[in-house]
Amino acid sequence: MSAQDRSDNTSAKADVQQGTVKVSFQPSGRQFNVVQSDTLFEIAAEAGVTVDTVCGGNGGCGKCKVQFEADPPAACSLDYMHLSGAEIGAGYRLSCQVTANKDMVVRVPESGDKATVQMLHHGVERDVELQPNIKKVFIPYQDVRSHEHEADWDRIRMKMPRKLRPVHIPLALLRQLPALSRLPEGLTLALAGRDVIGLEPGNTAHRQFGVAFDIGSTTIVGFLIDLSDGSEVTSASAVNRQSVYGDDVIGRLSRSQRNPEGLEKLHGMLIGQINTILAELSRSGDAGLDEIYEVTVVGNMAMHHFLLKLDSTFLGLAPYAPVIRESITVTASELGLSLGENIPVFVLPNIAGFVGSDTVAVMLAAETTISNSYRMAIDVGTNGEMALSNRRRIIACSAPAGPALEGARIKMGMRAAEGAIDHVKIDEDVKITVIGEVPPVGICGSALIDIVAELVNCGLMHHSGAFKRHDELEKEVNSALRERLIEAEKRKDTYFILARAVDTGAENDIIFSQADVRECQLAKGAIRAGTMMLIDAMGITDDDLEEVCLAGAFGNFIDAQNALRAGLTPQVGLGKIRPVGNAAGVGAKLALVSVVERRRAIRIAQKTEHIQLSGSPEFQKAFTHAMQFPN
Amino acid sequence: MSAQDRSDNTSAKADVQQGTVKVSFQPSGRQFNVVQSDTLFEIAAEAGVTVDTVCGGNGGCGKCKVQFEADPPAACSLDYMHLSGAEIGAGYRLSCQVTANKDMVVRVPESGDKATVQMLHHGVERDVELQPNIKKVFIPYQDVRSHEHEADWDRIRMKMPRKLRPVHIPLALLRQLPALSRLPEGLTLALAGRDVIGLEPGNTAHRQFGVAFDIGSTTIVGFLIDLSDGSEVTSASAVNRQSVYGDDVIGRLSRSQRNPEGLEKLHGMLIGQINTILAELSRSGDAGLDEIYEVTVVGNMAMHHFLLKLDSTFLGLAPYAPVIRESITVTASELGLSLGENIPVFVLPNIAGFVGSDTVAVMLAAETTISNSYRMAIDVGTNGEMALSNRRRIIACSAPAGPALEGARIKMGMRAAEGAIDHVKIDEDVKITVIGEVPPVGICGSALIDIVAELVNCGLMHHSGAFKRHDELEKEVNSALRERLIEAEKRKDTYFILARAVDTGAENDIIFSQADVRECQLAKGAIRAGTMMLIDAMGITDDDLEEVCLAGAFGNFIDAQNALRAGLTPQVGLGKIRPVGNAAGVGAKLALVSVVERRRAIRIAQKTEHIQLSGSPEFQKAFTHAMQFPN
Repeated sequence: MSAQDRSDNTSAKADVQQGTVKVSFQPSGRQFNVVQSDTLFEIAAEAGVTVDTVCGGNGGCGKCKVQFEADPPAACSLDYMHLSGAEIGAGYRLSCQVTANKDMVVRVPESGDKATVQMLHHGVERDVELQPNIKKVFIPYQDVRSHEHEADWDRIRMKMPRKLRPVHIPLALLRQLPALSRLPEGLTLALAGRDVIGLEPGNTAHRQFGVAFDIGSTTIVGFLIDLSDGSEVTSASAVNRQSVYGDDVIGRLSRSQRNPEGLEKLHGMLIGQINTILAELSRSGDAGLDEIYEVTVVGNMAMHHFLLKLDSTFLGLAPYAPVIRESITVTASELGLSLGENIPVFVLPNIAGFVGSDTVAVMLAAETTISNSYRMAIDVGTNGEMALSNRRRIIACSAPAGPALEGARIKMGMRAAEGAIDHVKIDEDVKITVIGEVPPVGICGSALIDIVAELVNCGLMHHSGAFKRHDELEKEVNSALRERLIEAEKRKDTYFILARAVDTGAENDIIFSQADVRECQLAKGAIRAGTMMLIDAMGITDDDLEEVCLAGAFGNFIDAQNALRAGLTPQVGLGKIRPVGNAAGVGAKLALVSVVERRRAIRIAQKTEHIQLSGSPEFQKAFTHAMQFPN
Repeated sequence: MSAQDRSDNTSAKADVQQGTVKVSFQPSGRQFNVVQSDTLFEIAAEAGVTVDTVCGGNGGCGKCKVQFEADPPAACSLDYMHLSGAEIGAGYRLSCQVTANKDMVVRVPESGDKATVQMLHHGVERDVELQPNIKKVFIPYQDVRSHEHEADWDRIRMKMPRKLRPVHIPLALLRQLPALSRLPEGLTLALAGRDVIGLEPGNTAHRQFGVAFDIGSTTIVGFLIDLSDGSEVTSASAVNRQSVYGDDVIGRLSRSQRNPEGLEKLHGMLIGQINTILAELSRSGDAGLDEIYEVTVVGNMAMHHFLLKLDSTFLGLAPYAPVIRESITVTASELGLSLGENIPVFVLPNIAGFVGSDTVAVMLAAETTISNSYRMAIDVGTNGEMALSNRRRIIACSAPAGPALEGARIKMGMRAAEGAIDHVKIDEDVKITVIGEVPPVGICGSALIDIVAELVNCGLMHHSGAFKRHDELEKEVNSALRERLIEAEKRKDTYFILARAVDTGAENDIIFSQADVRECQLAKGAIRAGTMMLIDAMGITDDDLEEVCLAGAFGNFIDAQNALRAGLTPQVGLGKIRPVGNAAGVGAKLALVSVVERRRAIRIAQKTEHIQLSGSPEFQKAFTHAMQFPN
């Protein structure tokens, strides 16, 4: 039988006299008696044997290949188009092009069962099976033509693999169906779960993208993902312009409370920036905005409310009740995003209080909830969010760290930008590194932790956080360091010279004062007290922790040893501190490429117990204690 | 314990020390071990024992009463508000106000299990259990207040009976939730299934209406239903203004084919008229448009497509493929109805070809699909739709009867309006009845069937439909009748004088010509041939029919004996002919008051086999035969 014959035979299969044959699938060994006129692809789909596909079994994608153990049918032109000569020689054929006209034994490639995606992002590495919520299915004209007496919607639906058969189509798309389903170039349906969200002329099954957003108080990041293979095409980010209303979320919340215009403004800024990022992703990733079929979003509770334009009056007042905890799917048009109107935006679930979906996403990405071992995740920010979990139990809280570690309230503090001292080592003298290798202009968060840890370590500071007076200094402290400690009449004005202008070529000396130490202590004390509360609530000790994940940019830049020395984190072995970078973003991506991961995120959020720290006397006690530096 | 004590105790129940007690429900005898702090209403709801409620168990409606077999608790003020003294004496209490604080045996009134609605409408009488898709639940402020640390959405949802707990709330309503859920007057939720579709301040649980529409080619009827008890409040109707584009749907379809503006126009006319009817129902039924929470619609396939503004190009061309067969729920705002934007419009499922949801609704209302006996439903119209069914099998078809029976193409034909002869009896002489008891101006459909039947019966006409020549008349035909038969040179111009102007005071004689007979034969022949095809396809004979239901206004006005004599219907005993009036409208109402009936409609549509008559040689043969009048 020639290639031409095969292909003719397939399209004319409705006329073939029906009988039954036996088809076995390896490696499972499952065997089925089937009618002769079905393709192997259809048989596998009906039987629940997963064969890979993008186009829905119409010869469009070449992914549904299977290997004949013996006696393969003649290869058809589509086999030659999609498979290598070696594959054809080894008996591989496209299962959608083979009609089961005799008994057959075929092997389904393992990758067919699980297309996996590797998620790798600053310390988080996850292999996940590609199972996006979005699917596209191409239906060629000849398949449409043969059932013209049926309703269009039935006719189209019945040509789709049973597992993908949609149950809902919006009225606006239904109105386009009669014309689009009769085009000679065929029709591609875009599905979100069992809902049709797009109808496109021709075969566009290979073009399907999604965007995962991590919306932080400081930075908004979008990742463009190719949903046909799960790969990250490109990413784009922007500084959250809401910062003009305050670096911390409290300032922004107060602006939106009982103030619909303020809320509208904050919401509008966010949507505007998201649209800018979408446009940038579309441009640099060479994907049309109309080829983006789904968006996932994580963010803290305030960003969540601003994004959805939810009244945040009560989120900003004790006891900080959010409007909704669970995940919610809205449409791009409800939010005003410049995407198709039916495009779903899946907003991951929150926990409670200020603990938002970003914390859920961190737990999902860093896999802190899958084993019997206790793992902690800490996201250091104006509000430090932290979660302690194992397979059985998850508890979380947020602690008001304030903006010190982001550079605010520190005399010479600044963001981690060019000119910021980002690391400090105190040995015989002070060694600094500066972002951009330029003369230093200020100090960023990671260096603050270094400084306080090193000052205590080298003997210039008491464990209480007070600079020692010169007459208290041990003799081991050398003169180079002594000279940098400048005592003032008012204790809070005592300071340490971190970098002399004369040495660095900067305009000013960079100094770190007693008041700055206090700010750092308040910040790190709040974080540490939060972790103490969680450990206490779980009924364990620091020693029981298997891992402490530090999330966010801060977690990546911080020196783990100094974080331990400064008492920012639970006191575990250095090897147990794991920076996981933008794990929240990874979580958003996981929810985009896999509905299984999405369901896991939902379960994590449902299962998490929230501990309310504000107003708790135990927290106040822990806080007071945690302000000290450990011995 | 005084009434005051009881009520205090209920609201403070969270503080009560928890223990378990035994609660038994009669008549089922089911027994449960429950925690002491729950109310009987909550216990019943969790256990699946159906206790009636409108307010959701908050003392607002008084419907959840149960009877204590012995030792009832003291009646509280809400018991006195909602129950009679006799009821209180007999041990009835509101189950939502009784905390299970000791072992109890209570009897659940039978009405609690089934609130039934009687549907009575021109020959259709159905008792159905009230189970609307729409529910309203009131949540008083004190219930909202006590869980302030939770997310608003969780807090509200958890206060609802488990069976009603919603799973989805639209973003627009979620945005209103924080403010509305903190009002001292409490909050009422309107639910469609598990979706929140409305949030209202205060207790509005007792105000809930729905509208059922029957959209015919000729007439549009709307029924306002009180969903709290299933009663019909009022109805309103209008002549379908699309008639300006042709009495039959074919003319309207051709106007909309490949013509988006034509479709837009036909759609717009329908929506405008529906809005007018909604306003009229609201006014005369004293129900706000914002108190209408759901709409159900039945109609023929063309009206269905015009309503939804679906491209009807291919519906108007052989093989007459509709766009969608199954039921569809759209929102009022998608259609442009002047109701709340989230209000669902449930459009009942179609069958195929021209057989639309009106036929499904007729079968639902007339219960033609529930027993082993074969029942036929016939809707006489420009397109006659008919279905033959029993419990196991349903088949349906449509036959092109043309507009003759609606008065068109008949020389002196008219609609059933004032001045129309609606019934004719030929005995010694001709007796007529005229609508409005005025001098006659024309003949409407029911009289046409009378006339042809009586003409054959009295010997003035051959069974072929040809007037006899005077020389062919039997001697039994008296002179009064002979004189009314006026022979013409051209056979088609021969006519019968039905009413002489001189006798009736009308302007003209009312006559009925040989050409008119032919039009009637074409119309009744098509209907009869359709029924013959169905009977044949089912493999039965006329004798196997248990019942023939005549739907529509025509079915109500027609003389059953003459319908049989004229050979419009299958030849069954007179007692088996059942006029069911606007059964399609009753079907729409059933789907509104009961989700069980709604699901039945869906199953009926799924199960129905459609027989395509157009182009069938068997139909042509049957048609030729059916044009004759039976012996």
